[in-house]
Amino acid sequence: MSPKLPPATRIEADVARALAEDLGHGDLTAALLPEQAQLSARVIVREPAIFCGRAWFEETFRQLDPALSLDWQVEDGDTLAPNDTVCELAGRARPLLSGERTALNFIQTLSGTATVARRYVDALGPGTARLLDTRKTLPGLRLAQKYAVRCGGAFNHRIGLFDAILLKENHIAAAGGIAPAVAAARHQQDAVLIEVEVESLTELAEACAAGAQRALLDNFTLAQLRQAVSEFGQQLELEASGDITLDTLAEVGATGVHFISTGAITKHLRAIDFSLRFSD
Amino acid sequence: MSPKLPPATRIEADVARALAEDLGHGDLTAALLPEQAQLSARVIVREPAIFCGRAWFEETFRQLDPALSLDWQVEDGDTLAPNDTVCELAGRARPLLSGERTALNFIQTLSGTATVARRYVDALGPGTARLLDTRKTLPGLRLAQKYAVRCGGAFNHRIGLFDAILLKENHIAAAGGIAPAVAAARHQQDAVLIEVEVESLTELAEACAAGAQRALLDNFTLAQLRQAVSEFGQQLELEASGDITLDTLAEVGATGVHFISTGAITKHLRAIDFSLRFSD
Amino acid sequence: MSPKLPPATRIEADVARALAEDLGHGDLTAALLPEQAQLSARVIVREPAIFCGRAWFEETFRQLDPALSLDWQVEDGDTLAPNDTVCELAGRARPLLSGERTALNFIQTLSGTATVARRYVDALGPGTARLLDTRKTLPGLRLAQKYAVRCGGAFNHRIGLFDAILLKENHIAAAGGIAPAVAAARHQQDAVLIEVEVESLTELAEACAAGAQRALLDNFTLAQLRQAVSEFGQQLELEASGDITLDTLAEVGATGVHFISTGAITKHLRAIDFSLRFSD
Amino acid sequence: MSPKLPPATRIEADVARALAEDLGHGDLTAALLPEQAQLSARVIVREPAIFCGRAWFEETFRQLDPALSLDWQVEDGDTLAPNDTVCELAGRARPLLSGERTALNFIQTLSGTATVARRYVDALGPGTARLLDTRKTLPGLRLAQKYAVRCGGAFNHRIGLFDAILLKENHIAAAGGIAPAVAAARHQQDAVLIEVEVESLTELAEACAAGAQRALLDNFTLAQLRQAVSEFGQQLELEASGDITLDTLAEVGATGVHFISTGAITKHLRAIDFSLRFSD
Amino acid sequence: MSPKLPPATRIEADVARALAEDLGHGDLTAALLPEQAQLSARVIVREPAIFCGRAWFEETFRQLDPALSLDWQVEDGDTLAPNDTVCELAGRARPLLSGERTALNFIQTLSGTATVARRYVDALGPGTARLLDTRKTLPGLRLAQKYAVRCGGAFNHRIGLFDAILLKENHIAAAGGIAPAVAAARHQQDAVLIEVEVESLTELAEACAAGAQRALLDNFTLAQLRQAVSEFGQQLELEASGDITLDTLAEVGATGVHFISTGAITKHLRAIDFSLRFSD
Amino acid sequence: MSPKLPPATRIEADVARALAEDLGHGDLTAALLPEQAQLSARVIVREPAIFCGRAWFEETFRQLDPALSLDWQVEDGDTLAPNDTVCELAGRARPLLSGERTALNFIQTLSGTATVARRYVDALGPGTARLLDTRKTLPGLRLAQKYAVRCGGAFNHRIGLFDAILLKENHIAAAGGIAPAVAAARHQQDAVLIEVEVESLTELAEACAAGAQRALLDNFTLAQLRQAVSEFGQQLELEASGDITLDTLAEVGATGVHFISTGAITKHLRAIDFSLRFSD
Repeated sequence: MSPKLPPATRIEADVARALAEDLGHGDLTAALLPEQAQLSARVIVREPAIFCGRAWFEETFRQLDPALSLDWQVEDGDTLAPNDTVCELAGRARPLLSGERTALNFIQTLSGTATVARRYVDALGPGTARLLDTRKTLPGLRLAQKYAVRCGGAFNHRIGLFDAILLKENHIAAAGGIAPAVAAARHQQDAVLIEVEVESLTELAEACAAGAQRALLDNFTLAQLRQAVSEFGQQLELEASGDITLDTLAEVGATGVHFISTGAITKHLRAIDFSLRFSD
Repeated sequence: MSPKLPPATRIEADVARALAEDLGHGDLTAALLPEQAQLSARVIVREPAIFCGRAWFEETFRQLDPALSLDWQVEDGDTLAPNDTVCELAGRARPLLSGERTALNFIQTLSGTATVARRYVDALGPGTARLLDTRKTLPGLRLAQKYAVRCGGAFNHRIGLFDAILLKENHIAAAGGIAPAVAAARHQQDAVLIEVEVESLTELAEACAAGAQRALLDNFTLAQLRQAVSEFGQQLELEASGDITLDTLAEVGATGVHFISTGAITKHLRAIDFSLRFSD
Repeated sequence: MSPKLPPATRIEADVARALAEDLGHGDLTAALLPEQAQLSARVIVREPAIFCGRAWFEETFRQLDPALSLDWQVEDGDTLAPNDTVCELAGRARPLLSGERTALNFIQTLSGTATVARRYVDALGPGTARLLDTRKTLPGLRLAQKYAVRCGGAFNHRIGLFDAILLKENHIAAAGGIAPAVAAARHQQDAVLIEVEVESLTELAEACAAGAQRALLDNFTLAQLRQAVSEFGQQLELEASGDITLDTLAEVGATGVHFISTGAITKHLRAIDFSLRFSD
Repeated sequence: MSPKLPPATRIEADVARALAEDLGHGDLTAALLPEQAQLSARVIVREPAIFCGRAWFEETFRQLDPALSLDWQVEDGDTLAPNDTVCELAGRARPLLSGERTALNFIQTLSGTATVARRYVDALGPGTARLLDTRKTLPGLRLAQKYAVRCGGAFNHRIGLFDAILLKENHIAAAGGIAPAVAAARHQQDAVLIEVEVESLTELAEACAAGAQRALLDNFTLAQLRQAVSEFGQQLELEASGDITLDTLAEVGATGVHFISTGAITKHLRAIDFSLRFSD
Repeated sequence: MSPKLPPATRIEADVARALAEDLGHGDLTAALLPEQAQLSARVIVREPAIFCGRAWFEETFRQLDPALSLDWQVEDGDTLAPNDTVCELAGRARPLLSGERTALNFIQTLSGTATVARRYVDALGPGTARLLDTRKTLPGLRLAQKYAVRCGGAFNHRIGLFDAILLKENHIAAAGGIAPAVAAARHQQDAVLIEVEVESLTELAEACAAGAQRALLDNFTLAQLRQAVSEFGQQLELEASGDITLDTLAEVGATGVHFISTGAITKHLRAIDFSLRFSD
Repeated sequence: MSPKLPPATRIEADVARALAEDLGHGDLTAALLPEQAQLSARVIVREPAIFCGRAWFEETFRQLDPALSLDWQVEDGDTLAPNDTVCELAGRARPLLSGERTALNFIQTLSGTATVARRYVDALGPGTARLLDTRKTLPGLRLAQKYAVRCGGAFNHRIGLFDAILLKENHIAAAGGIAPAVAAARHQQDAVLIEVEVESLTELAEACAAGAQRALLDNFTLAQLRQAVSEFGQQLELEASGDITLDTLAEVGATGVHFISTGAITKHLRAIDFSLRFSD
């Protein structure tokens, strides 16, 4: 089962915004083509990648001309080899040319995120630890990137500030300690996960005693992570975070933590090289 | 004189969208702090960078609490060294914590683009060639990225499909050749730049004769570029494009072309590492 | 600490919509008053109530004339007696008259919800069980009503379909049982509460074994609730639901369940009677 | 002929807003069902009611999946008996489950208003007096509620401040009396009804002489109402208002007034109990 | 007392739309001025006119820079002579230049409408007949033009299809005659003016008997108008319409009709010539 | 090939706004017709005109009822004779009547602009000079009017402040002369036309030397225009502007300038008289 897409209205809005910034008051160049001129084209990828962004690509052309035909060869999450055909398109030339760059910008960006997520998941290897993203995302593209992360095989941490509670130093200090902070959090909102950021095993013990459902272990050494797992791993969920790299992922995963989170998969981006080739 | 910012309404919209995706129906964790609790903090950068994004950062906090005070130490386009302080903030703790991630996401992204643009400009070195961006941008962030490109010292190609005409293979074929395509373009819209994409010196000669104001020289060799400059460089503007890298920039610039354009500075992203540190 | 308000932009949107439907292309009657005519007035309540809606009331007049002065005598959550003065207003007569009905509509509605929530909380009495609302709300006013529920002393269940998972019969059947449904839910989204709706102690045992964090006990008898608490109350959270009335609340609470949820406090409404009295 | 629905764009906006507050960034639970899983269901009502809200119910599912089939058994304004089937639905399970609560919230609310309106109309009994609503409505749902009122057999007073003039004490005082106030109103806007609120027969005489088209008789006794009708009922329309209850409606109607208005039918709400039952 | 302005939100929206179409992604030319450069200027008019549009002019500059100072010499409805100074402006040069054309476009358009309305009112001369506008307006500018009409001394017919009922041939035929059409109209909506379009004295008699509040006399001769006034002028309001010109206005008014309506004052436009002069 | 329409989303927005201002909360009169009543009608023109506005007319009815049938007899840019049939319509009576005025308002306005543009083009006569519009347009209708101008056979100057640079007195003074102003403009934005407003041949020489691509010759005499053409006409484009009338157009064109621009074709408006006739 492929990951759940964001709501259609969000995808529509993402695309409408991107088209508006590219089209402004109209595509001056496409206007030079005869109104009914037809064109065929296909999208190919020029490098290995995990594909992501089909719904945004489709929506781009749908907003310009619902009569264009798109024949997909791949689905989100598929592994692509160089020169694989992704999609074949046919229809009126004007909307095809007007939407080309916007549509490609979406798939080059989202496939870029899915591809790096897959690289991290592969580096982590099999085991129980799950790779999570963070809120370090490209402004305006969070839901799209969170979806791309899942297409790459990783998992989502909270979407935003509204769907889980993460108690950090400031919140804990204001509440007078971990225990009262967790209690206040439970009082505030009963139906969300409560996680506490801890910087030592002592704080982890407190978070556990306070009834936190998860602890974010900030910059723990491998030895500390192993101890955390052995002492508290049955009682609450443990999430390793801080300076995780492709090189260290496997050994962090081997400590037995339940989750590893990293901002690198969404805040950096290596766009995938796609190209729209017109038929002769 | 610093580059011109996008219109305030665009910056407001960029920020409103980013805050909406992070805040949803409210920041559950910040709600745990007393409503009037105060906090001081400063933003530092953890690596060398060209700074960009001040207006988006400010707007983020302005939308949450116009009473927060921000004391800036830098301006867009400034060069930052590791651990430089970027800004000092003070005010109510809730909006400060609620806006932290969104505000940082903007400056880490836009400074990332400005920094890579500067690296390309530095690699190009002094001379007459100007580095241009393209329309390969992060969906929804085009105007912001185009501004960051200018902060990095490079220049903007057209903003979108509406403010210049770029005649490519399809348009030329539909019009029956370069000359009729340029003529049609001039007829369509008198007040915009008309550029023709050419793949050979023969096509360049045609574009020149047709009265094009600029030619995009697609994947020309260095020798071809030099010949283009010597034969046509006085008659129309020449823009080199295609597989430009940091390594080849200087020698492409040395051919005498007026512009070099590359999608790499806006489609990839290495976010800059900023951190919000709270005062003790 | 008073409950956290919805984001300011939501309150602004609630008010803008309500003003638009009342004002249309302008208040024809207020236009008859001299533009600079001044007026003083006070809002009184005509029956006992829990007050709620101050931010919406203020925003209504702020959108019409930010120069109006409002002097509040009460805060959200306060208990009002008949004829208590809620707020004194002064300023230009036109915006005061144009906003009167819209502003009153908000406080009569939200105080109505807060007041009934308090009645239910009082009926439940002291003890460990918390009263929760549901998603049975007035269309377009969910966040406002959820806030009013907290002002009345009750708690919020999930805000919508996006911030917690509630597995019902259909989901369980599709997944092939409670255990695979819970496993799929955990796989889908790690950072949210997972609750299972159960109709018998057997199903409750399954949900507990599957690792659900909470169970919604649908239409359990008091005896069943007591047994559920004694067998599973230490392992997962228990929520009683179904045909809860003011008369049965106390005895349901006495069974030891952690939560009791009811749609009655938000789907029905007895508006509170407020009046805006102008000074002589 | 059934009452005229509000414009389609308003219904779309009502529904889009309600879906947005329920769905947020997506229905986490529905995502667990296979994307193509099918479901059949029917909506039944569990208590006697006047039905209202079909267009909002339909629009909810249309926005989620236009391919769902809805087979209606009733129309707006129909009288429902307990367990009557209202509508049968079939199609993909995900949108059916995602829209269930939002769609039901609309019909439970609007049928609630239509049902109470019918109770008041029935209590008023046959005769010439018409029952009118007021502007005391649920914020954001005015047009929908005004439509429900008509489905219940009552009539609409003005929609808002923009489509009729109602001169109250403040306007009259500012104008220097009823006659100059009516004259100013006629001067301001020629194409709307002008009504004057009066508190005595003397004021009613003034309003009549001034050329008002209707008078709102505020808190008149039955004797006063009868005298108003006999003296002025041929010259202008008379509307009784103030503390009208189900018990007093018939005798107020019997006085011969043309209209009786009450806020009770729209400001309070007893939601009707509907249920979506899935087929085995 | 000057006419009532449309709601501030409408004026804001009119201006935001006009600025957006002029500014797009930014004023390229104004960007060449130093950010803090200051400028003074004054608006003068170059021909006789009735002024209208101050609120739109102000709002234009307010959206660009609230710190600009505007010193007004005139008010809406004032009579201007050539070279009169309308307003003096001072502040930052960039927003002044960016807003110049948009601000002038509003006052040249709205003063154009106010000026022609005044010419028609003057041609009508003193007497009881009022000059009314119609719904033949510039798309998107109806409320603004209706306001300008009042500034010129004329009056507004209905704003749109929603605030009065005008029964024409099709409605009457569908209802089976004037009497049933008026009855249906009264049943549909009690709080609005009901007007019937008639083409003969016979139809006027029917409309009068049916209880219509006003009749639109379509293309009546002067003799017919006089007869209509003498027979029915005490019983319902009479509005002359159809091919009214400046030359015929006075004699139509002299027939005694209550209203004369014409589309000419809003569908045609002779913009007034304003100029923004910068100080030396 | 007919001129390129503005983007569909702009036309949709133009129409949605116009319908909203006419329909408000609903067409009270159309509601009196049976919901399924059918009607046929045709639009005729009552005076000679150049037709423009088909897309806006169609969109008006599409938003009200996509099932209406429209059978067009003309295209944008066609020459109409009095009583020509423009379009035949058939379908449900309610949407036909509700959309009539809004649809006609668009074609009467846009055909008015196209017709006057054609009159100016005809007056200019054959030759090389092109007639250009300006930014003096009806607020909110710029793109629509710019399209109408092209339908009339004239050409568009820049759309707004964002797609070309026009250096006027203030910009030149701030930059310290024409040469530095042009240099700054080229530095600011490489991909747009740079035009300089000049008031003498000396300034024109400076603009030419500075590399401006076009000069706006403000209020030049015919002799000055001829001299400008002979001295500089090969080096840059020349645009005559200022007090151009129908009478002077031909002789200005005969001077050999490339462009003549005038605000008169868009700031004034003589609406064309169209009528919707219903079939018997």
